[in-house]
Amino acid sequence: MEEVKIYAAGKFLSSREALIVTNPFNGKPVARTFKAGPEILDQAIEQALAVKEELQGIPSWKRYKALKYIADFMENKKDRFVSILCRESGKPWKYALGEIDRAIQTFTVAAEEARRLPKEYIDLDWTEPGEGKEGIVRYFPVGLVAGISPFNFPMNLAVHKIAPAIAAGCPIILKPSSSTPLSALALARAIDGSGLPCGAVSVLPMSRETGNHLVTGPQIDLLSFTGSPEVGWKMKAEAGKKKVILELGGNAGVVVTETADLDHAVNRCLQGAFAYSGQVCIHAQRIYVHENIFTEFSQKFVSKTEKLRRGDPEDPETDVSVMIDEDNARRVEAWVNEAVDNGAQMLTGGNREDAFYPPTVLTGTAPAMKVRALEIFGPVVTLEPWHTYKDAITEVNDSRYGLQAGVFTNRIDEMDHAFHFLNVGGVIVNDVPGFRVDHMPYGGNKDSGLGREGVKYAIRDMLQSRILVKYRQY
Amino acid sequence: MEEVKIYAAGKFLSSREALIVTNPFNGKPVARTFKAGPEILDQAIEQALAVKEELQGIPSWKRYKALKYIADFMENKKDRFVSILCRESGKPWKYALGEIDRAIQTFTVAAEEARRLPKEYIDLDWTEPGEGKEGIVRYFPVGLVAGISPFNFPMNLAVHKIAPAIAAGCPIILKPSSSTPLSALALARAIDGSGLPCGAVSVLPMSRETGNHLVTGPQIDLLSFTGSPEVGWKMKAEAGKKKVILELGGNAGVVVTETADLDHAVNRCLQGAFAYSGQVCIHAQRIYVHENIFTEFSQKFVSKTEKLRRGDPEDPETDVSVMIDEDNARRVEAWVNEAVDNGAQMLTGGNREDAFYPPTVLTGTAPAMKVRALEIFGPVVTLEPWHTYKDAITEVNDSRYGLQAGVFTNRIDEMDHAFHFLNVGGVIVNDVPGFRVDHMPYGGNKDSGLGREGVKYAIRDMLQSRILVKYRQY
Amino acid sequence: MEEVKIYAAGKFLSSREALIVTNPFNGKPVARTFKAGPEILDQAIEQALAVKEELQGIPSWKRYKALKYIADFMENKKDRFVSILCRESGKPWKYALGEIDRAIQTFTVAAEEARRLPKEYIDLDWTEPGEGKEGIVRYFPVGLVAGISPFNFPMNLAVHKIAPAIAAGCPIILKPSSSTPLSALALARAIDGSGLPCGAVSVLPMSRETGNHLVTGPQIDLLSFTGSPEVGWKMKAEAGKKKVILELGGNAGVVVTETADLDHAVNRCLQGAFAYSGQVCIHAQRIYVHENIFTEFSQKFVSKTEKLRRGDPEDPETDVSVMIDEDNARRVEAWVNEAVDNGAQMLTGGNREDAFYPPTVLTGTAPAMKVRALEIFGPVVTLEPWHTYKDAITEVNDSRYGLQAGVFTNRIDEMDHAFHFLNVGGVIVNDVPGFRVDHMPYGGNKDSGLGREGVKYAIRDMLQSRILVKYRQY
Amino acid sequence: MEEVKIYAAGKFLSSREALIVTNPFNGKPVARTFKAGPEILDQAIEQALAVKEELQGIPSWKRYKALKYIADFMENKKDRFVSILCRESGKPWKYALGEIDRAIQTFTVAAEEARRLPKEYIDLDWTEPGEGKEGIVRYFPVGLVAGISPFNFPMNLAVHKIAPAIAAGCPIILKPSSSTPLSALALARAIDGSGLPCGAVSVLPMSRETGNHLVTGPQIDLLSFTGSPEVGWKMKAEAGKKKVILELGGNAGVVVTETADLDHAVNRCLQGAFAYSGQVCIHAQRIYVHENIFTEFSQKFVSKTEKLRRGDPEDPETDVSVMIDEDNARRVEAWVNEAVDNGAQMLTGGNREDAFYPPTVLTGTAPAMKVRALEIFGPVVTLEPWHTYKDAITEVNDSRYGLQAGVFTNRIDEMDHAFHFLNVGGVIVNDVPGFRVDHMPYGGNKDSGLGREGVKYAIRDMLQSRILVKYRQY
Repeated sequence: MEEVKIYAAGKFLSSREALIVTNPFNGKPVARTFKAGPEILDQAIEQALAVKEELQGIPSWKRYKALKYIADFMENKKDRFVSILCRESGKPWKYALGEIDRAIQTFTVAAEEARRLPKEYIDLDWTEPGEGKEGIVRYFPVGLVAGISPFNFPMNLAVHKIAPAIAAGCPIILKPSSSTPLSALALARAIDGSGLPCGAVSVLPMSRETGNHLVTGPQIDLLSFTGSPEVGWKMKAEAGKKKVILELGGNAGVVVTETADLDHAVNRCLQGAFAYSGQVCIHAQRIYVHENIFTEFSQKFVSKTEKLRRGDPEDPETDVSVMIDEDNARRVEAWVNEAVDNGAQMLTGGNREDAFYPPTVLTGTAPAMKVRALEIFGPVVTLEPWHTYKDAITEVNDSRYGLQAGVFTNRIDEMDHAFHFLNVGGVIVNDVPGFRVDHMPYGGNKDSGLGREGVKYAIRDMLQSRILVKYRQY
Repeated sequence: MEEVKIYAAGKFLSSREALIVTNPFNGKPVARTFKAGPEILDQAIEQALAVKEELQGIPSWKRYKALKYIADFMENKKDRFVSILCRESGKPWKYALGEIDRAIQTFTVAAEEARRLPKEYIDLDWTEPGEGKEGIVRYFPVGLVAGISPFNFPMNLAVHKIAPAIAAGCPIILKPSSSTPLSALALARAIDGSGLPCGAVSVLPMSRETGNHLVTGPQIDLLSFTGSPEVGWKMKAEAGKKKVILELGGNAGVVVTETADLDHAVNRCLQGAFAYSGQVCIHAQRIYVHENIFTEFSQKFVSKTEKLRRGDPEDPETDVSVMIDEDNARRVEAWVNEAVDNGAQMLTGGNREDAFYPPTVLTGTAPAMKVRALEIFGPVVTLEPWHTYKDAITEVNDSRYGLQAGVFTNRIDEMDHAFHFLNVGGVIVNDVPGFRVDHMPYGGNKDSGLGREGVKYAIRDMLQSRILVKYRQY
Repeated sequence: MEEVKIYAAGKFLSSREALIVTNPFNGKPVARTFKAGPEILDQAIEQALAVKEELQGIPSWKRYKALKYIADFMENKKDRFVSILCRESGKPWKYALGEIDRAIQTFTVAAEEARRLPKEYIDLDWTEPGEGKEGIVRYFPVGLVAGISPFNFPMNLAVHKIAPAIAAGCPIILKPSSSTPLSALALARAIDGSGLPCGAVSVLPMSRETGNHLVTGPQIDLLSFTGSPEVGWKMKAEAGKKKVILELGGNAGVVVTETADLDHAVNRCLQGAFAYSGQVCIHAQRIYVHENIFTEFSQKFVSKTEKLRRGDPEDPETDVSVMIDEDNARRVEAWVNEAVDNGAQMLTGGNREDAFYPPTVLTGTAPAMKVRALEIFGPVVTLEPWHTYKDAITEVNDSRYGLQAGVFTNRIDEMDHAFHFLNVGGVIVNDVPGFRVDHMPYGGNKDSGLGREGVKYAIRDMLQSRILVKYRQY
Repeated sequence: MEEVKIYAAGKFLSSREALIVTNPFNGKPVARTFKAGPEILDQAIEQALAVKEELQGIPSWKRYKALKYIADFMENKKDRFVSILCRESGKPWKYALGEIDRAIQTFTVAAEEARRLPKEYIDLDWTEPGEGKEGIVRYFPVGLVAGISPFNFPMNLAVHKIAPAIAAGCPIILKPSSSTPLSALALARAIDGSGLPCGAVSVLPMSRETGNHLVTGPQIDLLSFTGSPEVGWKMKAEAGKKKVILELGGNAGVVVTETADLDHAVNRCLQGAFAYSGQVCIHAQRIYVHENIFTEFSQKFVSKTEKLRRGDPEDPETDVSVMIDEDNARRVEAWVNEAVDNGAQMLTGGNREDAFYPPTVLTGTAPAMKVRALEIFGPVVTLEPWHTYKDAITEVNDSRYGLQAGVFTNRIDEMDHAFHFLNVGGVIVNDVPGFRVDHMPYGGNKDSGLGREGVKYAIRDMLQSRILVKYRQY
């Protein structure tokens, strides 16, 4: 079995605590890696603090070069990166490929943004006491960043912590998910050759106990967490003086109207619902369709759902494969069964096989059912008809979450209404809530998070302003 | 005795708990007002939540008009506002006048910024999957804001919470200091006539217990606190899911170099050190002067210190008057005595009389002495010589705080060095750390705070982005 | 008869050449003023150049104060300003009032923008040779501005030259139309009290010959002309080294679709067509209506056209009044007659009475007819049906002009198509091409102009960048 | 002899008019290419117009890809590009290499900026009539661009026209200098493979007569000229309706003060004065040194000047080589002799050999001498002492030109003074006027030009705004 070392303070290390990563599709071990204990974490922190000042002073051409080096490295070994991602996460090849492409783009954008860090030059003579004074505002790195990333996008969500940190000039310690640490560790190899100071980036799988130091430790200046709402909000309470950015989940809604292009809507919803078995924060969980087109939509949707190709994630033809583990598949099964027991109708799906839960479509659900009220993080979608547009929007808003939402329409008034009244971080018109490109501001309202990611926005959170007030003299 | 009602949910109310505000200069009551109990606070919150959506939808010309109305109201009754501020806080008339002028300017700038809320329009076609898509980003009000403001700038620091909230479209509940609530309550009269929806702004003196609900209550979306570091950081830990902005204190340092204009430096340091008896977050507490000019500087400084005119704050000629209360004056006395007992030399000052502590200059202090290491918040300054410029900068940085710092120099290299290495929110070249105009970004690093104020920056923190992703169709 | 002096180099003067301004409605003299000869113009230029450097150095609080002073002055004497405008131009009272309100707003916005002149702070270390270097970019006044403004908005189009010049710190010489110089001369009284340096602004009616020096004279750095295309483009050719901004005319088109709110469209088109007798650069001259609603639209439109109230411009109830002079009314009459002679159908209107030409609606016109192909600058509109949306857009584009265009629709695809394919400076969705607010970018494509106005944009054209490249030293 | 085809409308062509390019160092032919006649130019224009709409619609990821392709192509064949540039222009290898590196960077920056074209989203509800309206501003390509570039930076100054045009989505026809067309024609090979539509870019050497159509022809929308002031300003007068950008020359000044790092100043001035034999728009022509350090400066400067290595431009060790042709060397010789005849002192230099004119240092010159008053565009520098700083600044400003200027100082007041009072496009502190990086705003005041280049700024000039005014409906 391949052994993959972890990356602390510029060194590739093993530890006493082995971590076997298995392929969720076939249960076979993918590689043997390690969990960092407190000593290794301490080393990483210490070295990160030691290079803080050096990092701050690196000119933008060097930050650019390092970030482009990493992007090029990934481009050149793309197949290998896709394969690792695929095997550790069970994500079908085509989606894994898309994720690696996006990670490359995230680094590329970060390289460009490293040249364009925010800067301001302002007049201070708006009142007489400020006469002759002007302000020059530079944004300096906030300090040591701790990034905690989830299993579902093992590469690109790690990259959304690391690339901005490099651009901003902050050292970072990344804790990847223990289920899927290999992608980030493969990335560590690219980072190691990028010319950054030793210890600028560490990638350390850890137990939750060890990792807790990233939350509570006073040496950390900013915690950027992507994961479940419960864990995230708890972290915020324990974070002490540090800044906290939370990218959490949701139960995203979609509204389909009569003026929508129906086939386009069906196709996009299909991907939004079942890509990576719905294990996506902005998975289209609740689809609301105008009553006049509900039957047509649901028939087409169910029919296409049933044609999705199941199989080995490494097969490029596979559309859907296993969930991350059987526990999660069982949970999804239980929620679906509960819904059906309480009167929901299953249009297709059900019948779990180990960690595989088939794409499932429910209708006739009630708002309080778990499949609708909570984040299912599985290949399940609820389909309900609506009568008035405002009601549909109200339904989508009827959630503790507010990440993104989709609206399929060709009407200006409906678009405007959705934009102004959907309490979410992103309203996607004529596409699913799952739409994201890596330079756009992204993040949730309500329980779905705090702050925004997207390269430029993440960088901004990793910086703090300092104004130079200058008394002009001549 | 005048009775001043408190302002909740659009009504001027009294409560069962009276609060007598006294003039710290002569101990005479200024007015009788009230503390809000939990029921009044609940009403204020309820009404604030009720107008949230209405506020969000107010067009910018109405926000502008309301904010200008308030500014004009204050301009027209400026004497009355200055007098209230003067009497409740003991702040000398000329500084009280400056503060009211600044508050008017803060509202004026907020009016202008209400028209210029951040907005973005971005291409999303940076990669093929984004082709045909573009993003329109609007910033929506974050929700209900709780503002907690301190005694030392009873008007303008309250305004720095209220004006941005109105501009951003957030309802706000302001808790002024119980020592100096009258300025903010006078302001409430202006707000009440501004045409804003009922309950958009409440101004409520409260006990710390009642006020704690502003920190912990889940209905509040953002807490903006200005006050002491200890209280502030504790609030952050208890704030739950809400955003927290902290504007705390410091022990600001100043460096005077040989190329400085010495008389200018002396004059500015004098004001930076003793304005409002040093009860200012960015009070110039530690002054480091090049050894070659140390003697000249200290002689001139001491001589001018001794000429400062003491007296009744309401006398326009008064330079220095009492501290906010005798407790604080005693604390300052104790710290100074401790320093002197441990070897520091008092060049002038000392000899407390009740709440009055005279402008005091120390030298020969050690870094660990309270007068140097902690925030003294009193009319005391330490004066020490330095040999190399880098040492001087290191001294200034040797603090848990990092709000602003001043450097008097005519050398480009010294200016650049200070800007890049002083770990503070603002480096003031050729003026004291106390320099602030109300539209500049302002706030502290390290223990001095979290986030930045200054109208535009405060507004930004009271907003959160929402992107409309549009699939172009034609 | 009232005598109104002209304003040169900070003085109110008379000249040897009298200019009698008459009310186009009743032919009565409104006032007696003067044309500046070359000597007065030279004085104005000389004094403008003399204060150039002083103007550049004025702090923003003083520019703000001067601009606000002017706005307040106009607000306080609004009735007088409206009356002058009304009488010299024949513009109905309600539109004259709107124009004065807009002029006040233009000054207000300019005051705010005077604090926000463009400024940049950029890193220059994108490549190794730039390491350690940064750039600070300030925008300095371009120099002496010549403004030439037309008769149709005698106040606000003059203000769109003067207010940005004051904000930018440029001296300006304004040549108002000889038909309507009194509004700008009334404004000169406000400017004179504003505290600006003597000669910063001159307002000088002149003969075209004298005024030609503003076009060709080398002391002028920027020429900003609003008027007819023929004159404008000729000026550009003769302008020598100076920058030239041209705001010219057009024959703006409107498209009305089936998803439009029909009554709203009719009402807005009515105003767009006939406000100030169509003597507006962005007058809705060509209206294209979907064939299915053409009959309904045209019936409603004609019916409302016939209800427009004719009369004395000073009567607040008047909707339409005379044109600027009988020559223009004759020209309009000739064009309409030519169209009718060639087969166009007149749905209402015709029958000139002296300088009054009634609101006239034509249909069945051909593209080459003057009423459609040229800028009619009169109360005439052509109404034609269309079959496909793309054809309608093509029709609107079939013009040498490209100022603004209107589209009434509730469809996203139609909005997007119009935005991307209408070759104009502004696409107004659900309003007429005549929509303009004073802070938006405004100006024409093709023969309609060069550059953009709108306070911030006009200011930018009156500035030129200077970069300070700083080699960081520490 | 190698034959190099010209590039029109997507095809590599020969013409009837051959153009032999010779190496100015040894007079040997470098290659045989062609001048385009009017028919070829017409083809290029026709095809450029034909792809205008297609170009406008290309998504940013494709513009990015094309621009990066070109940059990579040049990177991969860098030696070949350097060699061509070196041989056709006589520019020493090390400077030719620097130019190719900069050209690559110019394309890279243009790729990044192609994703970041200006865009605005603004509220229009600043007054009641704008309520409910908002504006979305997109910048569309201005149309067909004609670029005319000079001999002295045959690659990078051509790239400063072409790269922004591609980024902006404008077709462009470039006329390179007939002395040095080969660099731009080599670039055409890269462009041809970049995937841009056929005819988006043409590179056509032409006679001045043929080229004049680029100035006067109505199909061209923007003329961007880099070259001599006389030619440039004449073009502006003949340009008809098109926009004109002029990047012209100057006689740049440098001020050296007592607080400067003297050796650094000498070294930088040496390069600023003699790189590419002073055939640089921002060549340091006039050096003003404080009287106290004048002798030391001039001795060091002359001594280093005499050590510059003369030789074949293709030799990597060569510092200075021939001028572009003997005519220019004769002109320089005549100006220098005239100065010496009138009392100037030659500290080193003189003695022309064919096209080679040695690095020459003059002192004791008078302001009116050609070597000081005109643009010498040759390896000649005047060195004069000054007494007061303000006088030195006045001297630098005493010129019809105003491109860039250098100031060597460590004083803040001197830096501020220079920035505010030097009437130039760029003030370089502690470096020579010749400093330029390709993304900074660059261009001249007074007779030195109109408009600014630098990728982002050039792009902006190639775009014009269109606002979508949207009436919000919900």
